[in-house]
Amino acid sequence: MENIKSPFRGIANDVRGRVSCYKEDWISGISSGFGILAPTTYIFFASALPVVAFGEQLSRDTDGSLSTVETLASTALCGIIHSIVGGQPLLILGVAEPTVIMYTYLYNFAKDREDLGQKLYLAWAGWVCVWTALMLFLLAVFNAGDLINRFTRIAGELFGMLIAVLFIQQAIKGMVTEFKIPKDEDSNLDKYQFQWLYANGLLGIIFTFGLVYTALKSRKARFWWYGTGWLRSFVADYGVPLMVVVWTALSFSVPSKVPSGVPRRLFSPLPWESGSLEHWSVMKDMGKVPLAYIFAAFIPAVMIAGLYFFDHSVASQLAQQKEFNLKKPSAYHYDILLLGFMTLLCGLIGLPPSNGVLPQSPMHTKSLAVLKRQFMKKKMVKSAKESIKQNASNSEIYGKMQAVFIEMESSPVVSPPELEDLKEVIMKGEKEGQKSKEKFDPEKHIDAYLPVRVNEQRVSNLLQSLLVAASVCAMPAIKLIPTSVLWGYFAYMAIDSLPGNQFWERMLLLFITPGRQYKVLEKDHASFVELVPYKYIVIFTLFQFVYFLVCYGVTWIPVAGILFPVPFFLLISIRQHILPKLFPPHHLQELDAAEYDEISGAPRRSLSLSFREEELEMCDAEILDELTTSRGELKVRNVSFSEERHGLVRHLRTLSFCDQAR
Amino acid sequence: MENIKSPFRGIANDVRGRVSCYKEDWISGISSGFGILAPTTYIFFASALPVVAFGEQLSRDTDGSLSTVETLASTALCGIIHSIVGGQPLLILGVAEPTVIMYTYLYNFAKDREDLGQKLYLAWAGWVCVWTALMLFLLAVFNAGDLINRFTRIAGELFGMLIAVLFIQQAIKGMVTEFKIPKDEDSNLDKYQFQWLYANGLLGIIFTFGLVYTALKSRKARFWWYGTGWLRSFVADYGVPLMVVVWTALSFSVPSKVPSGVPRRLFSPLPWESGSLEHWSVMKDMGKVPLAYIFAAFIPAVMIAGLYFFDHSVASQLAQQKEFNLKKPSAYHYDILLLGFMTLLCGLIGLPPSNGVLPQSPMHTKSLAVLKRQFMKKKMVKSAKESIKQNASNSEIYGKMQAVFIEMESSPVVSPPELEDLKEVIMKGEKEGQKSKEKFDPEKHIDAYLPVRVNEQRVSNLLQSLLVAASVCAMPAIKLIPTSVLWGYFAYMAIDSLPGNQFWERMLLLFITPGRQYKVLEKDHASFVELVPYKYIVIFTLFQFVYFLVCYGVTWIPVAGILFPVPFFLLISIRQHILPKLFPPHHLQELDAAEYDEISGAPRRSLSLSFREEELEMCDAEILDELTTSRGELKVRNVSFSEERHGLVRHLRTLSFCDQAR
Repeated sequence: MENIKSPFRGIANDVRGRVSCYKEDWISGISSGFGILAPTTYIFFASALPVVAFGEQLSRDTDGSLSTVETLASTALCGIIHSIVGGQPLLILGVAEPTVIMYTYLYNFAKDREDLGQKLYLAWAGWVCVWTALMLFLLAVFNAGDLINRFTRIAGELFGMLIAVLFIQQAIKGMVTEFKIPKDEDSNLDKYQFQWLYANGLLGIIFTFGLVYTALKSRKARFWWYGTGWLRSFVADYGVPLMVVVWTALSFSVPSKVPSGVPRRLFSPLPWESGSLEHWSVMKDMGKVPLAYIFAAFIPAVMIAGLYFFDHSVASQLAQQKEFNLKKPSAYHYDILLLGFMTLLCGLIGLPPSNGVLPQSPMHTKSLAVLKRQFMKKKMVKSAKESIKQNASNSEIYGKMQAVFIEMESSPVVSPPELEDLKEVIMKGEKEGQKSKEKFDPEKHIDAYLPVRVNEQRVSNLLQSLLVAASVCAMPAIKLIPTSVLWGYFAYMAIDSLPGNQFWERMLLLFITPGRQYKVLEKDHASFVELVPYKYIVIFTLFQFVYFLVCYGVTWIPVAGILFPVPFFLLISIRQHILPKLFPPHHLQELDAAEYDEISGAPRRSLSLSFREEELEMCDAEILDELTTSRGELKVRNVSFSEERHGLVRHLRTLSFCDQAR
Repeated sequence: MENIKSPFRGIANDVRGRVSCYKEDWISGISSGFGILAPTTYIFFASALPVVAFGEQLSRDTDGSLSTVETLASTALCGIIHSIVGGQPLLILGVAEPTVIMYTYLYNFAKDREDLGQKLYLAWAGWVCVWTALMLFLLAVFNAGDLINRFTRIAGELFGMLIAVLFIQQAIKGMVTEFKIPKDEDSNLDKYQFQWLYANGLLGIIFTFGLVYTALKSRKARFWWYGTGWLRSFVADYGVPLMVVVWTALSFSVPSKVPSGVPRRLFSPLPWESGSLEHWSVMKDMGKVPLAYIFAAFIPAVMIAGLYFFDHSVASQLAQQKEFNLKKPSAYHYDILLLGFMTLLCGLIGLPPSNGVLPQSPMHTKSLAVLKRQFMKKKMVKSAKESIKQNASNSEIYGKMQAVFIEMESSPVVSPPELEDLKEVIMKGEKEGQKSKEKFDPEKHIDAYLPVRVNEQRVSNLLQSLLVAASVCAMPAIKLIPTSVLWGYFAYMAIDSLPGNQFWERMLLLFITPGRQYKVLEKDHASFVELVPYKYIVIFTLFQFVYFLVCYGVTWIPVAGILFPVPFFLLISIRQHILPKLFPPHHLQELDAAEYDEISGAPRRSLSLSFREEELEMCDAEILDELTTSRGELKVRNVSFSEERHGLVRHLRTLSFCDQAR
């Protein structure tokens, strides 16, 4: 209630907070030099590819009223606006799946109404955007941003799971349509004869699975053993767009005897064609929409506003996690206000609106975090090496490094806790004398103890939005991508989002027999596996699963399916009021933890931890399997010979961001 | 020279040794009851599938002179003979890739000779078998079996690598031919029109990669977290034939509009058709072969005899590794003699000969080892539980168990070293009193300390050979398998044989930058990685690689390619005489170790082990990657809470077959 009494309070605070660091946002961005290009290109590809894929989905579902040109244009426009006048510049905007789904429902409703039809579809959607913008303004003004801490893991992960399932659904739907003639196409064309339809479908299967497999493999490239560091880094960051290019190129290796429409490629009008230029007439058409429909637009608008509020705020939250040590203030309320304006603008020119996206927003922050570490480390190592050359004592070395650190921090801190550990190591070296093994090696020690700093600025966001705008002009190239590669990309997005989703991991846990659960404990596992009794994990997960089925089921209802966000809003209040009555509070806290608490795996010492006979028998065959090579030889196991290595290992501490950040 | 002076010595010893346990071979097999069926079916599928695939390869390469019927018949016949009168019953026989390659060379030679041609091909091959048999007799009589310890890892693994490469070559060749019209086929048929050829090729790609991927995944099923023990065990053992069945079934889901020849399926005459019955006339035809060719058959016969001697003996060796604790004697010389007889027989009836196969032979022993443990454990646990019921003291319990153990061993041993550990645990429990945590739990403790025993008998080998014979009659079902599934099976066999081949692992090591090698040390790794300087590993591996290229290159020479075993025979003497001059002896010993020495991985403690700047920078991004979920959240890492679990872990000893077996 306090919120309603003090309107504009949140917005005012946000604006005050961000205006003070506005200038520095630009300066630190520009002073990063060319180093800013790496995060820029990384986020550009991560942003643009899904938008291209969503454009194709939208094109199929709205019979071409909206397509890739529109989604890219909206992403670019909103991204540019947000990077210049937005509150939190680390937040990435783009057209997201919920928008695509909503617009599909709107289209299915509009096309069957005589008074609307496909002609007035975009105009009516414009009215929906008007109402949405109004509600977002109200939410921003009345400080609804304070409510975001009620969006706990249970709702967020359920929503994430729903999106993943919808992606898989789209991928499967897409693969099936590769075997069929598209709607309203001439079935006498050569490429639509049965044999070429079938060949198109088979090629589709090959490309879809090929992209999914290679894209997922490339994501783990940092952990590969092979290749140089540069190569692994490149593959890990740019592997997925690279694979899209590779599979697109492979699609041209089809023999020339095959008709040109096989395999099918992305469909979209070019930006300078008449189909796109019609958008400027949407505002005029909005006057033609009958009044009843204008008022009817209110209902979908409530849903969209709620979803946007949720999505935008959670994406912003994840981009500003505590562990990132961000210095500049958040701006949740102001950003919702701005989102309202952008939604209004997009609606008026017939574009689907954009909002804050996951996982690109925290990816953005993460890519800027690495950069800062490298940058700072170079300076600090340089200063330490100079001091060592001058035979400075260890306390002097530390003093100089601290000075450099503070200077770059640009906020005076006497002895930040993060540097305490570093100080300890340096001082210890001094006590034991210069010839001890603990001699201070700048490179080795500085890296282990340097906490995360993020390069908070606006340049990367602006540049990547400009790149998206440029890619609108590159539409002829984008149209070469086979649609089956995009379906594969949908499947890849779904699969990639699952690990780390505790809902998914809890469901998988249900399939592990209790006698086998020691395997989970051997690897790194979420803390609830140890702290919460199995019974509660099962009940909680089954509840979440049934609820998920309800939400998914709602999306299948033809028109009323637009109300699918309602169960989510309900879930938030169920979590507040009903669940605490069913579960002990500390268990609920663990299962629905705000943070992702993980416990390191304990390596296997013995196999006799389970006491059931068939598990023990299983272990026999498993031991034999493990100890046998493919050739049939039994291996002879030993422990390592290297004492020296063990010594070194005990000496250096494990890096832990979060310990130092707390 | 001593060998030549005492002919028949080896054979006589072998016969003496095996005749004494011949009766027991059958009795222990039959008394295993239905338990013997599990290893039988396991080995049957592992044996029969490759033979089917080789039959298709042979059929393609000999224009149908030999096909799957012949390879299956040979495998069955030789298997039955060997199981009844063979020396080492654990050795599995079958038609192997070297035989297929040799017969292909013979065919390519024969078909271009006017005097021979395709008609007399099998007859001439019969003469080759006659010479081969003669040479095998000589090798057996003059105790050449003593030479097998000169076949070190360097030769064996190089040969294994060559076979793997030839498998991949066949898989690729097969996939490419799916896009083309087969030799001597009517190109006007519907199924050979371009669009259906193309569809056939695409289906081929899907099935081939599908089988490779699913088969490789199913092999690791024992280590899966999910599913019950029974399910995982079943998938791990029968997953590959199951996948062949699944993909064959999927191949029937092709729409009915597609012509019936797509996808292409296995080609073979049925056993009761005229094509097969011609084999009985091979002996007659042998008289028609010109004398010059009879003498020319000597050259390929030398190659084949050498290869068979090598392959048969190494397969037998690996089936009788020290770690398996086999009690009955080996019979290398006698088995070579028998191989000679079987080769002669096969040649006379126009079948390709069989010899000892890898990896099926050690797989056979391994499957019988598990069985014995389960069998003995049940008896021992039962006896221990009875004693506990009668409130016997711990020493009485141990005494009873020892009695059971000895009884089943059927050779009196006073206090076998393997049982010492068990005794220790039981006695310790007695000292600390009945209520201590170390209370003797039969199930838990017996399993950890029971050494490997193998159920050495002849029944499983005979039964699996009979099953192969039965599958000859199941040819109509086998003919349903699409050829693309078989090409996938070739690729699967190649890929599955690589891990554990130290030559392959050393080659991969060359691609790991020195700064990254700590990753290898973190996992279980072969001992030479730690014990031999990197420089020597590189030189040795490059030498082996170049030599491998030479061997592979020889196989590409059209007719003289039949001499491809010569470099291998040379390598054996190079290893004896030249390599010890180039490498320090202890390093050579490590790199070319007889056993597969492995060192356990040391889990990662610190990431600052490498001191190069780009490696340290790499570590930054890697740490961040590891600590971030797909949603973008940073994980909070802890160590385990469970004290109790740590206590239990320290208490029980790790199982180690080899420690106890030494």
